Amino acid sequence: MAVIAWWWLLTVVVVAFHSASSAVIESTWEVEYKYWWPDCKEGIVMAINGQFPGPTIDAFAGDTVIIHVVNKLSTEGVVIHWHGIRQKGTPWADGAAGVTQCPINPGETFTYKFIVDKAGTHFYHGHYGMQRSAGLYGMLIVRSPKERLIYDGEFNLLLSDWWHQSIHSQELALSSRPMRWIGEPQSLLINGRGQFNCSQAAYFNKGGEKDVCTFRENDQCAPQTLRVEPNRVYRLRIASTTALASLNLAVQGHQLVVVEADGNYVAPFTVNDIDIYSGETYSVLLKTNALPSNKYWVSVGVRGREPKTPQALTVLNYVDATESRPSHPPPVTPIWNDTDRSKSFSKKIFAAKGYPKPPEKSHDQLILLNTQNLYEDYTKWSINNVSLSVPVTPYLGSIKYGLKSAYDLKSPAKKFTVDNYDIMKPPPNPNTTKGSGIYNFPLGIVVDVILQNANVLKGVISEIHPWHLHGHDFWVLGYGEGKFKPGIDEKTFNLKNPPLRNTVVLYPYGWTALRFVTDNPGVWFFHCHIEPHLHMGMGVVFAEGVDRIGKMEIPDEALGCGLTRKWLMNRGRP
Amino acid sequence: MAVIAWWWLLTVVVVAFHSASSAVIESTWEVEYKYWWPDCKEGIVMAINGQFPGPTIDAFAGDTVIIHVVNKLSTEGVVIHWHGIRQKGTPWADGAAGVTQCPINPGETFTYKFIVDKAGTHFYHGHYGMQRSAGLYGMLIVRSPKERLIYDGEFNLLLSDWWHQSIHSQELALSSRPMRWIGEPQSLLINGRGQFNCSQAAYFNKGGEKDVCTFRENDQCAPQTLRVEPNRVYRLRIASTTALASLNLAVQGHQLVVVEADGNYVAPFTVNDIDIYSGETYSVLLKTNALPSNKYWVSVGVRGREPKTPQALTVLNYVDATESRPSHPPPVTPIWNDTDRSKSFSKKIFAAKGYPKPPEKSHDQLILLNTQNLYEDYTKWSINNVSLSVPVTPYLGSIKYGLKSAYDLKSPAKKFTVDNYDIMKPPPNPNTTKGSGIYNFPLGIVVDVILQNANVLKGVISEIHPWHLHGHDFWVLGYGEGKFKPGIDEKTFNLKNPPLRNTVVLYPYGWTALRFVTDNPGVWFFHCHIEPHLHMGMGVVFAEGVDRIGKMEIPDEALGCGLTRKWLMNRGRP
Repeated sequence: MAVIAWWWLLTVVVVAFHSASSAVIESTWEVEYKYWWPDCKEGIVMAINGQFPGPTIDAFAGDTVIIHVVNKLSTEGVVIHWHGIRQKGTPWADGAAGVTQCPINPGETFTYKFIVDKAGTHFYHGHYGMQRSAGLYGMLIVRSPKERLIYDGEFNLLLSDWWHQSIHSQELALSSRPMRWIGEPQSLLINGRGQFNCSQAAYFNKGGEKDVCTFRENDQCAPQTLRVEPNRVYRLRIASTTALASLNLAVQGHQLVVVEADGNYVAPFTVNDIDIYSGETYSVLLKTNALPSNKYWVSVGVRGREPKTPQALTVLNYVDATESRPSHPPPVTPIWNDTDRSKSFSKKIFAAKGYPKPPEKSHDQLILLNTQNLYEDYTKWSINNVSLSVPVTPYLGSIKYGLKSAYDLKSPAKKFTVDNYDIMKPPPNPNTTKGSGIYNFPLGIVVDVILQNANVLKGVISEIHPWHLHGHDFWVLGYGEGKFKPGIDEKTFNLKNPPLRNTVVLYPYGWTALRFVTDNPGVWFFHCHIEPHLHMGMGVVFAEGVDRIGKMEIPDEALGCGLTRKWLMNRGRP
Repeated sequence: MAVIAWWWLLTVVVVAFHSASSAVIESTWEVEYKYWWPDCKEGIVMAINGQFPGPTIDAFAGDTVIIHVVNKLSTEGVVIHWHGIRQKGTPWADGAAGVTQCPINPGETFTYKFIVDKAGTHFYHGHYGMQRSAGLYGMLIVRSPKERLIYDGEFNLLLSDWWHQSIHSQELALSSRPMRWIGEPQSLLINGRGQFNCSQAAYFNKGGEKDVCTFRENDQCAPQTLRVEPNRVYRLRIASTTALASLNLAVQGHQLVVVEADGNYVAPFTVNDIDIYSGETYSVLLKTNALPSNKYWVSVGVRGREPKTPQALTVLNYVDATESRPSHPPPVTPIWNDTDRSKSFSKKIFAAKGYPKPPEKSHDQLILLNTQNLYEDYTKWSINNVSLSVPVTPYLGSIKYGLKSAYDLKSPAKKFTVDNYDIMKPPPNPNTTKGSGIYNFPLGIVVDVILQNANVLKGVISEIHPWHLHGHDFWVLGYGEGKFKPGIDEKTFNLKNPPLRNTVVLYPYGWTALRFVTDNPGVWFFHCHIEPHLHMGMGVVFAEGVDRIGKMEIPDEALGCGLTRKWLMNRGRP
């Protein structure tokens, strides 16, 4: 085992912190569009208090976070989702438009108040329309007062992808008949900084003579280099909020010890690079044990789709390095379609010692077939032949007040609607239905979800889908090839040390199994984290403990739209 | 007098029609973005039921119009204003966001229901953000069952200007610090059709050989030609919903007899071309008495600003014309800065015989100084040193429910705040204030408004501002040069036969006087109809009969935002 001595072997006792000494972190955030140069070309970003990306929330487990979000947009609503925070007792603060709350109208303020109950590396982002793609995101770090990892310093690396086409135009393109695909991103960004149409490393291809990048140190697109001292251990907190791209990150000349995934410690393992899908976070420990007179590339490239986007680069900058720039070309991103390599990475991830094992058995099982389809010639993504149409009235409110016309009361199918569906071929019937039905679960049961991938509408291809569950961590029980065989493939599940996560990748033509406990009364979105896919209906909704929702205190301000608005306006009237 | 015999000399008895035989015109309109080719280049328009411009409403005076507006946008609110309709008894249906209603949220439906009480040529348009500029507009024709004009046929000509930059980008540009001006429009459109970067008439400049326009007859940008028979009289109903451009319209080889302005008959007069400002409508009668074997250009060009936009052209097409296209170049638009010519046109407009004269005296007078200023280095337009900041909670609702924190209770000044203000120079103090205060008027009084123009922030220039009043027609009492002299200039007012209008132009460095009766309980927007100017705060608000508003039935759906939403949700609770 390649475990080395400089990091502490993790044994974790998961503790929730609600101590009396918890702090309150309170902030007012004004959201507006702003001109910005994320990739050295002027564009328009969604900024928070004039910053892009938004401010980092830095809290301790048990703290209460209060964010007053002021919508300063001209005509658009907005919400913010706190990705990875379970929102126990505060489902209305989850920030998913149409699911847990109404969009905040222009000029209005909505207050999110929630407890960050356990330590972890998280982020936040817009969850209305495609506003995440417009740059509405930032880091959300929750520290443990009793951190089990030993390190000397840390860096946040928030990864994203960037288009020059506005999100309004992208939304229209995707919603058009026929659909117009938005294409690959123009740039990858590290902490909101990238370089379009120039590469910091270009001089390697030009005989070492010329650097085609003309940004200056203070430019908005100039990379933030990571300044490190030799022979120290650094924690890199890495989050991917990409709209589309699956990424790979490497630090030249350095190994990475993976210690955390989605806010949960994992059994440490050492790699040269990590794959990271949209919605995922990782912490890796990096020892600065390379030659300290050199500089080293930190490189982020595209995997899983044929890359048309240059690598994002920044520099690991030893403080006493004599080089002006790294003397070698940046690490080459592993070839995009080497899926076996990707799977090999995923399969290295296990829970750290001390984490509770999953329950041995599940009480319920969903098998969710992911297909690309047509609905009246609009291109859609469907789950068990339903493309999700998020209603105007948030489920949380319509359930609380028993407003039965707010959404489809019939739940979608729990498994394939076609028995002998051949996942290796385009759908025999290309057409799908649209719906707003949800899955209802009682509290305290164990649910298995099998995500089943399939061939897309045309051609021989199956796409990557990173699925993200709100309000929960789940155990990743396993990945398999081809079509899931109920009653058989369950036997391959890892029940010993599966990692707890909130996002998991579904590989082409394969399946992914996860298990969770319905321990959080509320309504929770479960969806592909690829922004265009979600926009095209790729999600389902879980309601847990419906009777408890009825008794929950939900701020009226969260429900001031659609049928809940009407209900609340007539409440108490004869 | 150049009056000719083929049109009937107008004597009007103004009648309001509320007869039992009135019809109900009911329609459901879905508003969404759509790809379109308004000027032979692909852009994105706001379409209604897939159409651009929106459907024409064709009603008779006394009819009830019911439009269910369904917001199919992704994240944006929307409203529709029925420009020229007085909304007597239905101020909540006026469709001015923040003034008379809340924006309709995505996925929601709002029903406008109002009576079109008198005949006239009107239009409708978006009144939230800069959605009018995105193409949210259409014609609204109200006919009289006893039409006094005699004509054989009619055409609607809805004029607009078009940018290739999206409205979201335009809004940001105008709201940025420093402000970025959006520039002149790329195209002028007639009924939503124009030609970018090509001129139908270009072959005149190219030796008659080549037509650079490549559109085909069925293209979205192909002009609708006006097919006419010889020796007939046609009514052209012309409306301008431009965001910026002041226009001039001419029909080659034909004279135009102006008979209607803003829904009111005027004493007919004959011209070769008409000026039309944003927010205005005209009807002109045209006799097809030219050589019927020829074709003739209908030409629309820019006035009042240095034109950088090609003329919009279509063809008056005699049914038996043997020409394939007009044999002569289109009429030349009068030079843009010949303001005297423009004024001369305005001053030809008088009420038709039989219209009631204005009251002899006014009870109140506002003198509204129009200035361009800075607010914290943002560029703004101000009225008496207040740049209007439209509140989130619609005035109509906050007044009805007595919600005093919804807007500034202090009214803005009724006249210049600086006594010796020199309108010929840039403002001595460039800074302005922002506010949401309104002017309150009791019912049944006569109010004079003097619009006073001035020099802009920089340079020696004063801009044109067409002012539009909601909920009313007003009498245009006169235009003057320089600074209005209270107590003196009133003597020049035309009290004999001033035209009734809802929009009037304020010329550079001059003043315009208008008079209206506060006969319509409600809250009414009065603002510059130039979309960017309004976006930068150029408007005021009049409340009439505040006590009556308290007793008015206003649909809750109009008030489901801001403080009225909160109030309505808590209504009836202990």
